[in-house]
Parts: sequence; C-alpha cells; structure tokens
Amino acid sequence: MTLQELVFGRRLENREYRARKLGALEAVPAMGLDALGSSAYGPEAALAALTPLGGLSVAYIGWVMAPVIALLMVLYASYRQTVAAYPGNGGAYLVARENLGTQASLLAAAAIMVDYVLNVAVGISAGIGALVSAVPRLHEYMLPLCLLVLLLIMIINLRGTLDAGRIFAVPTYVFVASFAVVIAAGIYAVLASAGHPTPIVAPARLPRATEAVGAWLLLRSFASGCTAMTGVEAVSNGMSGFREPPVRHGRRTLAAICAILGALLAGISFLCIRYGIGAMDQAQAGYRSVLAQLAGATVGQGPLYYIAMGSLLCILALSASTSFVGFPRLCQAVAEDGFLPKPFALAGHRLVSSIGIVYLAATAAVLLIAFDGITNHLIPLFAIGAFLTFTLSQAGMVAHWRRELRTPRRSHSSHRIRAHLGINALGAATTAGALAVIVVAKFTEGAWITVLIIPAVILLLRAIRGYYDRIAASLREPGRLEAAPAVVAPIVLVPIDDWNKLSRKAVAFALTLSRDVIGVHLMQLSGPESAGAQRQGALRCAWERDVAEPAAAAGLPAPRLVSLQAQRRLLHEPLLNLVRTLEREHPDRSLAVLIPQVVKRRWYQHLLHANRGRRLRSQLLEHGGPRLTVMEVPWHFD
Amino acid sequence: MTLQELVFGRRLENREYRARKLGALEAVPAMGLDALGSSAYGPEAALAALTPLGGLSVAYIGWVMAPVIALLMVLYASYRQTVAAYPGNGGAYLVARENLGTQASLLAAAAIMVDYVLNVAVGISAGIGALVSAVPRLHEYMLPLCLLVLLLIMIINLRGTLDAGRIFAVPTYVFVASFAVVIAAGIYAVLASAGHPTPIVAPARLPRATEAVGAWLLLRSFASGCTAMTGVEAVSNGMSGFREPPVRHGRRTLAAICAILGALLAGISFLCIRYGIGAMDQAQAGYRSVLAQLAGATVGQGPLYYIAMGSLLCILALSASTSFVGFPRLCQAVAEDGFLPKPFALAGHRLVSSIGIVYLAATAAVLLIAFDGITNHLIPLFAIGAFLTFTLSQAGMVAHWRRELRTPRRSHSSHRIRAHLGINALGAATTAGALAVIVVAKFTEGAWITVLIIPAVILLLRAIRGYYDRIAASLREPGRLEAAPAVVAPIVLVPIDDWNKLSRKAVAFALTLSRDVIGVHLMQLSGPESAGAQRQGALRCAWERDVAEPAAAAGLPAPRLVSLQAQRRLLHEPLLNLVRTLEREHPDRSLAVLIPQVVKRRWYQHLLHANRGRRLRSQLLEHGGPRLTVMEVPWHFD
Repeated sequence: MTLQELVFGRRLENREYRARKLGALEAVPAMGLDALGSSAYGPEAALAALTPLGGLSVAYIGWVMAPVIALLMVLYASYRQTVAAYPGNGGAYLVARENLGTQASLLAAAAIMVDYVLNVAVGISAGIGALVSAVPRLHEYMLPLCLLVLLLIMIINLRGTLDAGRIFAVPTYVFVASFAVVIAAGIYAVLASAGHPTPIVAPARLPRATEAVGAWLLLRSFASGCTAMTGVEAVSNGMSGFREPPVRHGRRTLAAICAILGALLAGISFLCIRYGIGAMDQAQAGYRSVLAQLAGATVGQGPLYYIAMGSLLCILALSASTSFVGFPRLCQAVAEDGFLPKPFALAGHRLVSSIGIVYLAATAAVLLIAFDGITNHLIPLFAIGAFLTFTLSQAGMVAHWRRELRTPRRSHSSHRIRAHLGINALGAATTAGALAVIVVAKFTEGAWITVLIIPAVILLLRAIRGYYDRIAASLREPGRLEAAPAVVAPIVLVPIDDWNKLSRKAVAFALTLSRDVIGVHLMQLSGPESAGAQRQGALRCAWERDVAEPAAAAGLPAPRLVSLQAQRRLLHEPLLNLVRTLEREHPDRSLAVLIPQVVKRRWYQHLLHANRGRRLRSQLLEHGGPRLTVMEVPWHFD
Repeated sequence: MTLQELVFGRRLENREYRARKLGALEAVPAMGLDALGSSAYGPEAALAALTPLGGLSVAYIGWVMAPVIALLMVLYASYRQTVAAYPGNGGAYLVARENLGTQASLLAAAAIMVDYVLNVAVGISAGIGALVSAVPRLHEYMLPLCLLVLLLIMIINLRGTLDAGRIFAVPTYVFVASFAVVIAAGIYAVLASAGHPTPIVAPARLPRATEAVGAWLLLRSFASGCTAMTGVEAVSNGMSGFREPPVRHGRRTLAAICAILGALLAGISFLCIRYGIGAMDQAQAGYRSVLAQLAGATVGQGPLYYIAMGSLLCILALSASTSFVGFPRLCQAVAEDGFLPKPFALAGHRLVSSIGIVYLAATAAVLLIAFDGITNHLIPLFAIGAFLTFTLSQAGMVAHWRRELRTPRRSHSSHRIRAHLGINALGAATTAGALAVIVVAKFTEGAWITVLIIPAVILLLRAIRGYYDRIAASLREPGRLEAAPAVVAPIVLVPIDDWNKLSRKAVAFALTLSRDVIGVHLMQLSGPESAGAQRQGALRCAWERDVAEPAAAAGLPAPRLVSLQAQRRLLHEPLLNLVRTLEREHPDRSLAVLIPQVVKRRWYQHLLHANRGRRLRSQLLEHGGPRLTVMEVPWHFD
C-alpha cells in the first residue's frame, strides 16, 4: 500500500460510481446544511454592522432582519419554479447558459466560483468562531485551527466519501433540534417575564454608541444580513440527486429548508432584541459568537450549550465541505465547455475531480490567511457572489418563461406562465436590488475585491477557451492517409556512449526500423579533462567488428558511427545540429533519435544515474522540429 | 537572457577551460588562505578550552601553543617531501590510493570530505565572529549572516570565477600586513613597558577560575589548538597549478605559508599572555574574538582595527571558498573511480562540478544551523578530519619511500631515501599521536559525530561502487549483432483519442516503421459520465475511411482500431494489458507504443494540457518490460 492509498484510499473504478438518490428527509440535511449554517453568521454580520449604534443596535436589528426574511420568501417562491422547470439540474451556470447566452453563463460561473471559495472560508471561520466561543483558550490558535479543518475537509473530499447525504443528517438535525430548544426556552422566558427575561449567562455588554442611526447604516447592516440566505440555491443545483418524482421531493426539501431557516432567523433576531445581544469582535480574546451568547442566555452553559456549539461547528464545517462537492462539479461543467483547463474535467483517483478540490482548498486557505480567519471581514466579499448568482438564475428563469410564452403549443396556459414569469421577475428584481445595495454599501469594506475578481475570472475563462479553439482549428480535417507503399522509413540516430549490451540492444532495434542507422558518439561530455581519444578508438573498433561487419555480411548498408564534440557538455546541441544537417540533405525523410534508457525502479537509482537521457528527450522534442521523433528503448537491470 | 544566465553567467565551452599557472607570490594567497585563516580560530579555540582556569588561562597558553607550533614544523618538513614526490597532485586521496590501497584511500576521502565541509562552516562562523566583534549590534543576526555569506560563496563558485588566485591576493596580504603591524605594535609596547603593557582598549575581564590546572585540561586545549594547522596540506593538493618547475615553486610557497603561520601563532600567543587576553563566549552578546581583543589592545579601535577585522572576514570567507574548489575536485576524482554518483564527475554549466558545490553548501548550512554558527562548537568536529588526513597522507609517504627502497635502480641513494622515510614517519607518528589526543580529549564535545560519520561515508562510498560494478558486469561483452535481414519490425500501437491531424501524423509515421500498426482507443478516460459510445462510432467511421481504406488500396494490411475500457481512468493499464497479450501471441517480436506529444513552449501550456502523454511514457517504460519501446511524435502548434 502506498502513502497515497493510505491517505486517499484505493483508486476507484468507473463502475463503482453510483449517485445515491435522495428523498426529502435525507435531502434537507444534504442540501440544507449550507442555508441553515448561514443562520450562524448572517444575523451576527447584521448586528456587527450595527455596532456603532452601541446599545441601540438591538433595537434596530428587527428592522434589518425583517426585509432579509421577506427576501428569503421571495427567493423561496422563485426557486420553487426553477426546481420545477429544471428537474434535471438547475444550477445558475446551466440556467444562464441556456437562457441568457455564453456571456451571462460565464458571469454566473465566475460568481459561483467566488461564492464557493467564500462559502468554504466563511463556513470554516464561523465554525471555529463557535469553537472558540465554547473553549475560549483556543482563541489564539484561531487561524491554525481554520487551516487544520480546511486540510481535513480537503483530504476527506479527495477520498470522495462525503458525497453521501446520510452522514450529514446527524449534526444537521442535532443543530436544528438544539437551537429549537434554545429559541423555545428563550421565547418561554420572554413570555414568563413579561418581555424582560433574565439571562442565565449574561451576554457581553454592548459598547458605547459612536454613531447616530441613519439609512446608510441600516443599509450596510441589511447588506451583511443578506449572507443569511446563502445556500438556498443548493436544492436547484442538486436536482439530479432526487428520487422520482424529483420535482415533488425538490419542492418539499426547498420548503422545509426555507421554513427552518426563516424560523431560525426570526427567532434569533427576536431573542437578540429581548436579551440585548450584540456582535463581539472575533479578533479579540474572549469572543463569543451571537449564537453562543444566545444559547448561554437562554439555557446556560451546560451540556446543551456544548451540544449546540458542537453541532454548529460540525454543520459549518460540513457546509464548507458541500463546496468541495459543488465546486469541482461546476469546474467540470465549465471545463467540458472548454473554459477551464482539461484536467478539471477529469475524474481523479477516487472518481472526484482532484484538481478542483485542491484548487478550492488552496484559494480558501489564501483567503483565510489574508483575513486572519475573521468571519466578519469575509462577509462583504461573500454576499456579492451569492446575490449575483441569485440574480442571474432568476433572470435566466424570466428569459425561460418568455421563451415558453412564444412557443405556440403552450399558449393555452399562457396565464399560468405569466404568473411564473411575474414571480421570477420579482425574484430577479429584488435580488438585483439587494445586490446593488451590497455592492454600494460594502464596496470599501472588501466588496471591491469581488468586484475586481469576477471580471478577471471571466477574462481568464475566455482566454482559456480561445486557446482550445485555436488548437482545435489547427487540428481539424486531417484528411486521408497517403498511399502507404510510397513511405520511407526514417533515418535513425542512436547516441552511443560506450559499446555494451545496452547500446547493442538500441542499435539492433534501430535496424528493425530502418536501413539508415547512424551511431552518434559524443565526446568531451564530462568536461575538458575527460580522456576522450582513447575511448573513441576502442568504440570505433568495436563498432566495426560488432555492427558494420555483420550488417555488410547480411547485405545491408553498414551503419555509420559519427563522432561529435559536445563543446558545452550538452547532449542535445551537437545532436540537433546533426539532425538539421540531415534534414537539409534529405528533405523528404523524417528522422528519429533512439535513446537507450535505464529503467529506474528504486529511488536511489535516480541519484546514481545522471538522467541525461530524460533531459535529452525533452530538449529534442522541444527543439527538434516536426520531423524528429524520439524513441526510448528501456533497459532493465534486474 | 534567462535567470540562470543572469545569476551564474553564460554556459562555458570546454575550450574555455584554462588552469592559470601560479608562481610562489600568487600561490601564497591562493593556497595559504586556509592555513593563515586558521590563526584566527586556532589560538582562540585553545584559549577557550583553558577558560575553566580563569585568569590562569593566559599563563598556560604558551605551554599549549608551543607544541602546536612544533607540530607545524614537523608537518612542514613532511609535506616538503610530499610536494617533491608528487609534483603532479599529492592530495591525501591520491597518495593513499597509490601507496596504501583502496581502503585507506576511502578513509582519506571520507576524512577530507568531512574536513572540507567543516572548513566551510568554521571559516564562515569565524569570519562572522570577526564581523560581530567589529560591529557588535550585528551579534543577534549571527546565524542569518553566516547563511547569507554561505549562499554568496556558493553562487560565486557556481559561476566558477573564484578559481583564479589573483583576487585572493589583496585581502591575504592586507591581513598579513595588518596583523604584522598589530603584533609589532604589541611587542614594542611589551618591550617599552618592561613586560607590562597598558592596553589601548582593554580586553574582556577573564572569568573566575572554576578548575585547577591539570594534564587533561592542557591536552584538551592542545587538541583544540591543533586546528590552527588546518589548511597546510593545500599546497600538496594544488601542485598541478604551479608554473615550471613546480617543485621549487611549491616548496617556496609551503615554506612561506608555514613561516607566516608560525610567526602569527607565536606572536598571538605571546601577546595574549602579556595582555591577559582570553576567549569570550561567541553565543553571548558583546563577544569579541581573541584577534579583535588583541588588535584593540595594541592599536586601539581606529581605522587599522577595522582594516584588520575586515581583512580577517574576507580571508576567512575566501578560505571557506577554497573548499568549494577542492571539494568538487575531490568528488570528481572519487566519482571517476566509481565511488560517488556519476553526476559528481560531470562539469556543469560553468565548467565546475555544480552538484559538488551545491552539496557542500547544503551540508555546511546544516552544520551552521545545528551549531548556531558558533565556531567553538564546530572545532572538535573539525580537528579530527584534518589530522586523519595528515596522518594518512604521511603514512602514504612512508609506504612510498619503502617501495622506493625496494626498487633496485634507486638503491644507490638509499641513505637519502631512508632520511625521507624518517621525516615522513616522524610526521605520521606525531600527527597520529595528535589525532589520538584529539579523539580522546574531544570525544564527548562533538568529535564523536565525526567518528561516526567517517565510517558511514565509507560504507556509502563502497555501496555506490558496488552498484556501478553490478551494472557494468551486466552490460559487459555485448557480442556481435545478429545477421540483419532476419529482423522483423515491431508491432506499433498508436493511442488515439480523436481523429485529427495529430493522430493522423502519428499513424502515418507508424506506417513508415512497420506493416503492423494498431490504433488504440481508450474509453471512459474522463470518468464514468463521459459520453463514450457516440464518439467511438465517429472515430470508427473516420478510421475506416481515412486509414483502413487507403492502406488496403495500397496493398498493405489494413491497420486495426482496438477499443479498450480505461476502467480506472489510467491510460497505461489497458495499454499494458494489450501489450502483454500481443507479446504472448508474438513471442518473437518487439512492440512499440507511439505517443503523439504536444510540444509545450510556454509555461501556461503545461497547465492547459493534461500531460497524460508524459505520464503514459514513464509508466510504459517502467512497467512495459524489455521488449516495449516508447516513441514520441512531436506536434508543434505554431
């Protein structure tokens, strides 16, 4: 078993690929993780934006979260239609490609890629935020812990085992259940205390106000709070994973996820107001997340607190992990369209796209390091990608319905189509509005990075496609082979250092290919002081006796032995000169260089042999021109 | 101009190699650097070993340095004879190989290699010691400075420009002149003050005594002081560099070096006694080397002080640099005998052995890091290698003279030969004695490392030679080629992904080599979901039309197209299976796989192509067995 197999498992066969089909009960955890996990950082991000209001921040959080929840309902209605219209796969890239054209699909691809990367970074940093809330002395190791979790998630996904929905179920339902208890306990306390509950563990004191309330501040808070909706699109992306009938299962799943998320957001906002819970600075020691403060206030820091925080860490890590399934799949679709390098389209060792996974992990690691693993610093970058995706997806649906309207055979149900169109148009308009708010309100806080990166990614995707298009054009229309008997075998050159069994095998093989074989002896390869003349004489004798004479005796033209000076101790320079001379002399023939190659089976053999053959091969291929072929004859020592 | 050329200079041609021949005046700096530089750390190491005596240390340093200087005179007499007997090259490896056999020569090689590495480490650390004495605030950067100097020396030597003796001359003569002034001023002050001079800048206070004087302590001090002699052997190693007549120039150079070194050591010891100068701890801030304290005491910390310290830094760095000339040359000699990997015997980019230089720098860096760049911690390791080399060289000379005695035609001068033998025997005996003292006295202080490493190096050298011997045995006696017309061309397999100009070129070329060409189409390479059947059909049609029909029309056997499943998405697995089947069916024929290869001229092409061809090639060579040849047809896109 190699190290690779130990870490990543054995290489899977194609026939071992099976997509597990899901019902709604399994799909809620598998596809809802992302959206439900957003409740951990969305309200907190909104509260953090209100921090300048000090104690007043909790008074206004309701005004911010209410439109967020309303927007969630619009999104639910919109995606409910996408699910029905694209029961196969309704990801924004495909919807945009089909309805809005290549340009929009590339915009969507770039936006979703950025989104996936940020979902990993934000999920992990928020998860570690939950961990350090529960175990404060880990606070100083926040960034290393983030990177460790990222590494683990990457390795697990390279093994390809997290694709199954079942293992997502336990932490998701534990999370939902424990926060249902937390919120229920809080609401009971609020009711029992006539609206002024006493927290069991007091939340952090709210800071002194530094700003008066204003529309601008509320807009910025709303923009941050919008990240609470990220992940809602997952159901539309994963439609191919549902059991029959997919539309019914998909709609149920979407409804369940949106309902749970909405209830969580509403409950969290309500209790934050009543308990006076604000956002703390994650960069400071003693940080507790909003949900940690909330759980502490309502149920105390007992076992339930640790269960809730533990399930939150799990769900956020798993939510990051969902990107590792989605991102490589998106890259695969984009690579199959020629906009990403071919390797992204290849299934790797474990039937997952290894390059996509490694690339996602590396990019997320850069983000985590650049932003010190602080969730709130990543939020402005995150929201843009998500809302750009929402908008494009909904706009694509609008185009889809417009086309349906123009299709004659469907015109009898045109009023229903118009209703669908209206809902998706509302979705597109509201998400576009939210997007505009986010770009403007968060531009200087980091959104500019996303605004710059998305067009850069699009340019890159187009450049890659251009390259493949040029290649395809140059290879097209090969035409028939020429009449075969006219062809002439190539002139074969065999570099020979010494006359031994290895070079004998090479010359013998060369003679099976062509009647024109030339042995090439390179002198002064080791440096100026190497004793060349003596060896050259011995080699000439051996060549005459063992090669030229037997060939002549058999009536074949005797192979020549040519000696060349390697003035700069490079094998390829004199050989390429000889090749060029021969090409000029024989304009109609191709040439081949036959390199005897020692097969190295053990690591130390790579140190003990000079590896000149390998270097010679790549130099000849690179500089030898189209008429030169390189052949390698292996030699096994055992 | 590439980066490599910018840093290392252009690639030199063999004919640009010229060894500059030296006279005594140029040879003293070029070959004496090492020995003269030793005066900077030898006396200091002896004083450091006496530190437990506190103030009394200076009282006993004379008793330690007197035998060191006596030993130096013995060495002079011994090497004077080596120089005459081996006017070509009298390095210990060659002398031992010729006179004492392979075993002793390997012992010598191992000892000298260790010696070279330690000469680099000690030279640099002592040089930086001089620098931080002059500029105390650099003390905290001691180790980084050591590594920086090491890197610079490595790069300069990879350029191969320090081989010339001339640039050594200025710092060496400045060093000798400035310390002549320092010592003269000191002696004048001693005489003028009737033996009790007042230092201009007071040396550090000697610490409190912690031990009484004893033979063991003096022996340990003597063992450390012996490092003052390292480098004396350089003249015997460099004999080939002298102008005619080499023996006269060599003897003059050796005499001058030994005289200057002896005078320096005597002067330094005398003044240390009179001024009460002891060794300070290099690891502590405020460290001043013994020579720095001495210069400060006699001439003050004026311009002369800085000139003296600057020249000392230069001479020690250059002394480290001499190892970069000697070590690769030794490695080259050892590699030519087959005891080191072949790459060590190759002259590189700039006609120097690049691998030897890089290897030396890496090993010295490890030592510097392991010992924090502190000279005195490296001294115990250093002395052993040097004295083992001395002993083997002198023992080799004893064997040389004994053989001369047995040669009849020389017996008329047998009394002179006996005198030579006596001198070298005395040299061998005294250096062996000193070696024994060093091993015993310094064993626990680090000498054990050298004692372990030398046999390990010898075992490694023998293992390498054994490998090459086995290879040579398996390749010997190739025999004549068989009668040529009986040979049959190989069966050529051409992997084909798509029918385009690239695959057409490959098939056309294959048909020039053999009448048996098989196209191989691998399915499901990208993963389980790739659409295979449709493409397969299109490929079959194109093959029939463009390949099979024209070949049949020309009366050739029509090339087949075989489709294989790549169940684990690896090109080589199904191909190797096909190769094995064909090899069983045709036990008398060889096989070839022809791989179309895109020539990548730009860095981004390596990202945009999956590089499957390269991987296929190495897998086929490694696992294909001796009858399988790999051929690569290049495809240029421009």
